[in-house]
Amino acid sequence: MRLRNLKNKEELLDTCNYLITDPYKYKGLWNKEVFKNNNEIKIEIGMGKGSFIKNMALNFPNVNFIGIEKFDGVVARAINNINENIPSNLRIIKIDAIELKDIFDHEISEIFLNFSDPWPKKRQIKRRLTSDIYLNSYETLFKGDKVITQKTDNIGLYAYSIVSLNNNGYKIIDASLDLHSEEDRFNVETEYEQKFKKEGIKINYLKAIKK
Amino acid sequence: MRLRNLKNKEELLDTCNYLITDPYKYKGLWNKEVFKNNNEIKIEIGMGKGSFIKNMALNFPNVNFIGIEKFDGVVARAINNINENIPSNLRIIKIDAIELKDIFDHEISEIFLNFSDPWPKKRQIKRRLTSDIYLNSYETLFKGDKVITQKTDNIGLYAYSIVSLNNNGYKIIDASLDLHSEEDRFNVETEYEQKFKKEGIKINYLKAIKK
Repeated sequence: MRLRNLKNKEELLDTCNYLITDPYKYKGLWNKEVFKNNNEIKIEIGMGKGSFIKNMALNFPNVNFIGIEKFDGVVARAINNINENIPSNLRIIKIDAIELKDIFDHEISEIFLNFSDPWPKKRQIKRRLTSDIYLNSYETLFKGDKVITQKTDNIGLYAYSIVSLNNNGYKIIDASLDLHSEEDRFNVETEYEQKFKKEGIKINYLKAIKK
Repeated sequence: MRLRNLKNKEELLDTCNYLITDPYKYKGLWNKEVFKNNNEIKIEIGMGKGSFIKNMALNFPNVNFIGIEKFDGVVARAINNINENIPSNLRIIKIDAIELKDIFDHEISEIFLNFSDPWPKKRQIKRRLTSDIYLNSYETLFKGDKVITQKTDNIGLYAYSIVSLNNNGYKIIDASLDLHSEEDRFNVETEYEQKFKKEGIKINYLKAIKK
């Protein structure tokens, strides 16, 4: 996502009090030092404009949420988007996902992967957020059961994720190839998802667990 | 499938020399008594008109194939369809799938489930060929690794199968949500598949293994 019109990008990043600028120092201390409670912590890798993670935080006040995003521009856009009614259980970290292992030490209960880059070419496979490399890097983030929840419009990434998750010891415990057709399912939508829904594009969903 | 125009249905069933009319007596003896070789045996549950199982038998002469179908009419139609160039490694059994446990004793290497009835309603779940009940009934059919390969146009059945297979100890080792988009993949088509392909309907595919 390019950020063309956000003039005050640096100001937004500098003055945002829920953006954690030095996340490394909280490794092992997120509950104690940052959230100051013992509630579970869930993260979204690639938060985009941040609607999903903000709405999750509003829906589940007894869970802590952290949005992860690597690009300055996208983070600034998310902060600009979130700017009102900021939930106290929400934080943002600007970092590349592969560095998460240096930020969390058995502190996370769930990872959300929403509309991640599908990296469709064979030589790009290792960049997919459900590749062996990434799944392996998530191992020490989790406290207790490891839970990964994915939504994507990309059928290639979805099929790849099923096989890769199974291959890395995860069991798929819930799945849908048309999430929005199932009205009785609780679902917080992302910005991409709202766009796809309008266009009639089916959303693939899975929840995987590793004990 | 209703059989309206096949007048000689009973004659077809009575005179077909590769239709096994009393399969129970071969339990544990399929290699020795029926195929008279030690090649692996693969079955298709719900063979429809039989094109898939016949073409698989022609493509893999060193593997034995058995088509399973429960309705007289459908079996007769398959025999009528197969009637020329019948491979010596092909047999047909007319039986309900749930009875397979009384017919095979650790003799099968792979089960193919092609375009099975999706039984979409909640109260019908147990009838799905990948339900707990069926997966459990397949346990003693297999010799060595248990392998189930599924193709379906039905996204509900596909999502259900992923979760149910994982829940019953199977790992998905291969998957596609658009089988025909992958040109380098070996694939023998069924009659339904050819019809769906013409209509632009995507075919979902998975291969699952239980060690």
